[in-house]
Amino acid sequence: MKTAAFLGLGAMGGPMAAALARRAADTGGRVLVWNRHADRAQAHAAEHGTQAASLPDVGEAEVIFTCLPTSADVNEVMEQLEPHLRPGAVWVDCTSGHPDAARAQRARLLERGVKFLDAPVSGGVSGAKTGTLTVMLGGPADEVEAVRGALAFAGRAVHVGDTGAGFAVKAVNNALLAVNLWAAGEGLAALARSGVELGAALDVINASSGRSNATEHLIPDRVLTRAFPPTFGLGLLAKDTGIALDVVDNVRGSAPVLAQVAALCRAAAQMIGPDEDHSAMLKLIEQMNGQEIR
Amino acid sequence: MKTAAFLGLGAMGGPMAAALARRAADTGGRVLVWNRHADRAQAHAAEHGTQAASLPDVGEAEVIFTCLPTSADVNEVMEQLEPHLRPGAVWVDCTSGHPDAARAQRARLLERGVKFLDAPVSGGVSGAKTGTLTVMLGGPADEVEAVRGALAFAGRAVHVGDTGAGFAVKAVNNALLAVNLWAAGEGLAALARSGVELGAALDVINASSGRSNATEHLIPDRVLTRAFPPTFGLGLLAKDTGIALDVVDNVRGSAPVLAQVAALCRAAAQMIGPDEDHSAMLKLIEQMNGQEIR
Amino acid sequence: MKTAAFLGLGAMGGPMAAALARRAADTGGRVLVWNRHADRAQAHAAEHGTQAASLPDVGEAEVIFTCLPTSADVNEVMEQLEPHLRPGAVWVDCTSGHPDAARAQRARLLERGVKFLDAPVSGGVSGAKTGTLTVMLGGPADEVEAVRGALAFAGRAVHVGDTGAGFAVKAVNNALLAVNLWAAGEGLAALARSGVELGAALDVINASSGRSNATEHLIPDRVLTRAFPPTFGLGLLAKDTGIALDVVDNVRGSAPVLAQVAALCRAAAQMIGPDEDHSAMLKLIEQMNGQEIR
Amino acid sequence: MKTAAFLGLGAMGGPMAAALARRAADTGGRVLVWNRHADRAQAHAAEHGTQAASLPDVGEAEVIFTCLPTSADVNEVMEQLEPHLRPGAVWVDCTSGHPDAARAQRARLLERGVKFLDAPVSGGVSGAKTGTLTVMLGGPADEVEAVRGALAFAGRAVHVGDTGAGFAVKAVNNALLAVNLWAAGEGLAALARSGVELGAALDVINASSGRSNATEHLIPDRVLTRAFPPTFGLGLLAKDTGIALDVVDNVRGSAPVLAQVAALCRAAAQMIGPDEDHSAMLKLIEQMNGQEIR
Repeated sequence: MKTAAFLGLGAMGGPMAAALARRAADTGGRVLVWNRHADRAQAHAAEHGTQAASLPDVGEAEVIFTCLPTSADVNEVMEQLEPHLRPGAVWVDCTSGHPDAARAQRARLLERGVKFLDAPVSGGVSGAKTGTLTVMLGGPADEVEAVRGALAFAGRAVHVGDTGAGFAVKAVNNALLAVNLWAAGEGLAALARSGVELGAALDVINASSGRSNATEHLIPDRVLTRAFPPTFGLGLLAKDTGIALDVVDNVRGSAPVLAQVAALCRAAAQMIGPDEDHSAMLKLIEQMNGQEIR
Repeated sequence: MKTAAFLGLGAMGGPMAAALARRAADTGGRVLVWNRHADRAQAHAAEHGTQAASLPDVGEAEVIFTCLPTSADVNEVMEQLEPHLRPGAVWVDCTSGHPDAARAQRARLLERGVKFLDAPVSGGVSGAKTGTLTVMLGGPADEVEAVRGALAFAGRAVHVGDTGAGFAVKAVNNALLAVNLWAAGEGLAALARSGVELGAALDVINASSGRSNATEHLIPDRVLTRAFPPTFGLGLLAKDTGIALDVVDNVRGSAPVLAQVAALCRAAAQMIGPDEDHSAMLKLIEQMNGQEIR
Repeated sequence: MKTAAFLGLGAMGGPMAAALARRAADTGGRVLVWNRHADRAQAHAAEHGTQAASLPDVGEAEVIFTCLPTSADVNEVMEQLEPHLRPGAVWVDCTSGHPDAARAQRARLLERGVKFLDAPVSGGVSGAKTGTLTVMLGGPADEVEAVRGALAFAGRAVHVGDTGAGFAVKAVNNALLAVNLWAAGEGLAALARSGVELGAALDVINASSGRSNATEHLIPDRVLTRAFPPTFGLGLLAKDTGIALDVVDNVRGSAPVLAQVAALCRAAAQMIGPDEDHSAMLKLIEQMNGQEIR
Repeated sequence: MKTAAFLGLGAMGGPMAAALARRAADTGGRVLVWNRHADRAQAHAAEHGTQAASLPDVGEAEVIFTCLPTSADVNEVMEQLEPHLRPGAVWVDCTSGHPDAARAQRARLLERGVKFLDAPVSGGVSGAKTGTLTVMLGGPADEVEAVRGALAFAGRAVHVGDTGAGFAVKAVNNALLAVNLWAAGEGLAALARSGVELGAALDVINASSGRSNATEHLIPDRVLTRAFPPTFGLGLLAKDTGIALDVVDNVRGSAPVLAQVAALCRAAAQMIGPDEDHSAMLKLIEQMNGQEIR
């Protein structure tokens, strides 16, 4: 690869593009960057040796990465960028997007001879900075293999299925995060109100069968501390649980628990605020129970 | 301690009593054992150097451990054993019991000068065999400290609150197990039906924010393999989720997700069978979705 | 019957006792009344020709009616009244009580030769005033038949089963009220936000298969008008849905929807206020959806 | 109107087309009928004086009615019929369709100068036969008024909002039907298992605040009798509850109870069978509780 482009320099995208740039420095390539607010692209270029580019110029890249809030944002950028794309290029979308959108986007780009892979990531900002993200790839196996080497921000990259499968797995992962977190909040609120010391309770739960990423990390780090640091927004989690329900719906499946939590998650985003950290959805549980989780 | 007694030599209780016996061999004590089916007690004595005893004789012990299916079973044994108990003894109940029962049992035994601590355990049969269980202790701090040294089967013992708090934390832990397991089943059924390879999906989920003990261990080991080894029964899990709801109810709390999963868990115990392994509750999800989770 | 007594002169009890008094005037009997706040009993006597009485004096009655907020209140009164009761008397409890309490209360009174029937009512304040309430009777058939003539406040009295069955049916009725009301609120909030005129929507729903007492009466009368007149409190509805769950639990049943709505109902009582009218639980739905139901 | 056409002569459509034919006989018009299986159209013509027509010939009509299982079926017919439609005609879709489909269908037909109204009906087969259905109309007010006179099968026709509003209201109505029916099933299963006589229980519930169309009609007529007559299929109810969730989703609403029941409804369709009567979804509750509702 000679030229890569990265669109969307947010909390995740910024360090991901920087990882690409470090790799490119070793291999003689270059990384174009674009952001809705152009000053952020210029700052990125100055700090990480990337090149701020206009949307048309981004079309020169052989591999185009996007990391935007939603598939709707990707569609908007794609519409503008489409006339400038080079046949043979690959579009790798690291957004937590929608499987239906992935299928439509792939079909649209294939008409121009451009490939599309869905490639959402997990591992958080820290994983992005250390280049150890997990990537969930959806698309034809040969195309996945061909792009694997370009994923400089990845600690591991797993091919999970056909186009849309990456987004589907990511949505289900985030729905499980929401369920595990919400249920732990319900249980801990009742324990706190019963006079149980929550630190001790989490200690034993985390040594037992009820443990999850929520009880091991999110609740001790973000809720008990009352910090709720805004890294991953409640509104985006609500969006992702909605995508998971669409995955269920597309196969005429039945998922009563995911469905309930998706609805509660959306209520929390409405009542607590979409820009609050996702862990702040436990504030709704606190209101429902008249009991702080601390 | 000179004499301990262990009542209930099931899959957990058997190795727990054996751990007590190994300790007693070092310290010059002895361990009486009792089981509803007496032949099991005799076999335990023969294998582990404990002494099979009748219920009245068990009353000689300074520390009495119980590990039975439910608090109702403990009540039954307590009724028979009560006249034979020695003032100053301590009853340590390792059953996954009910906090209301713990309070009643403690009050009842205190009238005879006998102490009661709720002390449910986690860590499974393997933890019982290696003496590395986690014990959740409920009761007065000084009584908890006094008994701590006698818990030979424990890797760690955490004092989580007053009488009943141990059972409450254990019930909430098991309710979270049920929620995390059920929700993962719903998500994986939809992914499987969408054509996603579940091994790959679990790979990335377990490197991501949606991971739990269910996705890391139970589902790969018991469900994807179709083994469903019957270690912890579905009927007991349904009982424990019901206890968790009582914990919520006792404080007039609101826990819609725990409540929903408790109901589904009970339906699964009814439809799949109470003696099936708890992981087999995902077979109900499979029926609901017309899709195997494999 | 010569002497009846009525304990609990609230919004329901007051007119029920008045109906008894009208009947007694025709048949030469008398009606003793008692209330926690004695001035209310005196006012009732002055207005309706009943006789305000102390708790001991109430013991003279052949039929004792109670209509109190909860079974716990009935227990409290029963404890004080017990020594003064006449063998052969019948205690008819019109409280929306708990089936377990009914069984315990009956056993307790039978020791004194006093019978107990659970007899909760429906029909609201207007039904109480016109003497057209529906009574749900639980107890032995012969005792139910013997007391039937004394129910002057009843338009109809139905024997639904053994002791506790009256309370069980009433609790399930109120749980269905809660579910039907809550679900209608969810649907109407979404329609309102979609731009549908809710009066028109209710018009067609009430001519269709989705209609219920909630869509026919409660929502048009109390919610769309924004009146929320405080007749039946949200806290009491939350209590009743909790009793319904206990009915389910006592038979090891599975009721995921009743369980979910009971939890949401309790959350609404916590967040909106237990003394608000039960229809005000839709204010929580409004907050969850950022949309007024009007 | 001179010529009307009716497409879809199912259990509802057949008698609806017959009602049109009776009106046409009085006013000198004619009614063309079409059905996927042509023999059904010929039988209808023979019995009701309509005229069986091919799809192209149906294009001559000034008003075209469709009453098909789903919006997908309407789309299929529309694709074939489109080239043959007359500008100025009105397409009135009585299917229980999808609001999104309505908007797309209207846009598509407007390009040919043909209007589209969504006009789902309620009242069942008996209402269709007596010409007393309730129609829920979505579209511009003037177009709704213009078509009102042509709805010979309607007892009443209510304009509920813009294009798609008719389908939205119908979907919410059916979701409420599903919730009210399911919740009543849960409650009655628990009462039956508690020894309560269900006929007596329904008697009092139907005189009380928990009553609904489900407790007044569906359960006594279809469930307690064990008849489950297949009039409205469980698969179609599952589809309609799914549409209701899409209505909620389109406005980013939160409806946890509708969402849970939609999932359970789909599970019932999968496990009991999509062609069973919708009341047969209570058979899943029976399995979950190990208790017949009778």
